[in-house]
Amino acid sequence: MKVPVVRNILESNDRIAAQNRALFSAHRILVINLMSSPGAGKTTLLERTIERLKDKYRIGVIEGDIASTYDAERIAQKGVQAVQINTDGACHLDGNMISETLAQFDLTALDLLVVENVGNLVCPAEFNVGEDMKIMILSVPEGDDKPLKYPLMFQESRVLLVNKIDLLPYVDFNLDRMRQITTGLNPHQIVFEVSCRTGEGLDAWIDWLDNEVKTRRTGP
Amino acid sequence: MKVPVVRNILESNDRIAAQNRALFSAHRILVINLMSSPGAGKTTLLERTIERLKDKYRIGVIEGDIASTYDAERIAQKGVQAVQINTDGACHLDGNMISETLAQFDLTALDLLVVENVGNLVCPAEFNVGEDMKIMILSVPEGDDKPLKYPLMFQESRVLLVNKIDLLPYVDFNLDRMRQITTGLNPHQIVFEVSCRTGEGLDAWIDWLDNEVKTRRTGP
Repeated sequence: MKVPVVRNILESNDRIAAQNRALFSAHRILVINLMSSPGAGKTTLLERTIERLKDKYRIGVIEGDIASTYDAERIAQKGVQAVQINTDGACHLDGNMISETLAQFDLTALDLLVVENVGNLVCPAEFNVGEDMKIMILSVPEGDDKPLKYPLMFQESRVLLVNKIDLLPYVDFNLDRMRQITTGLNPHQIVFEVSCRTGEGLDAWIDWLDNEVKTRRTGP
Repeated sequence: MKVPVVRNILESNDRIAAQNRALFSAHRILVINLMSSPGAGKTTLLERTIERLKDKYRIGVIEGDIASTYDAERIAQKGVQAVQINTDGACHLDGNMISETLAQFDLTALDLLVVENVGNLVCPAEFNVGEDMKIMILSVPEGDDKPLKYPLMFQESRVLLVNKIDLLPYVDFNLDRMRQITTGLNPHQIVFEVSCRTGEGLDAWIDWLDNEVKTRRTGP
């Protein structure tokens, strides 16, 4: 009984996500679905990214959490619009939650919208919200074996940010081993090694994202 | 429509979990449901715990992962019986998965059974598997704000192990702030601060667990 229920939920979600996507596309907004384990650094990456791009692009953020408005408050302090979704127990965002939140944004005044998903390496990868691409963070203290154990997230994400590389000297994490596994799962995945704490590696990420937003604004 | 489906699933799960619990109780086995984010250190904690207690108690482990048998292989190398459940996409273990796995164990030859749940701070807290208690790990690199954002897991867990305290000098994690939040959520929660890497703090955890297993064997 469980499988058809899940399939219906996913199909219904995909319909709503497609409507969201058409709306974003009409407004030439680049939309990112940002995912990771709890505490891998999604909000901190957003803070660093907003600081560097907010004078160039109009940025909005949707924050997804089970409870609290802590993350939306952190983002709002950076001077961009942030809306918090509290899922009240649900372990991922879905197309409908995003659809219901969009009324809070002026879509004619946005270049980049980032949806920060609930911290979870499993279910968020199954639910499209209408994004152009999924981007994931793996933080070094989580271990280099995570792609083996949560393969879908790594398969679905166009970009993998390996965060907290400043902690590499203090933990057992083999970047080569991780790359070997992720290349097998997703050969075309773009990988950035960064530390949001020290700033190391962020230039390459920002340049890449800058170019993606620009292409979306000016593209065909 | 979604809510009654979820409620039915949870009620049906609780019935099966109660059957598991009765079986464990009849055999005087202490059963722990071990939960955390991906990469917080569940398997490493188990390795350290097995090393110290396996000559005194008969230990079994059920490993829950979306995919791979990597964790069960790690545990089996420690010389105790380990059975891997692959949930094939499901983000948590449930009572039925445990029930179906129990045939692989000789329950008359077990003192302690640890169920290592899928790495996820959300859904595992909602599904009982028949355990005596839920125990969770929060690792220091995840940040001291996690209890605010994933409150149910902290409310449901009798024990909180704060792991990777050897990384405290390199990250922003305020133990006092965390304790303030967790005490508000769960005033009677037992907290151990440990590093599975250096061994710091493990004695107190092992002594406590030893006493719990002993009480279960000899108790009323």
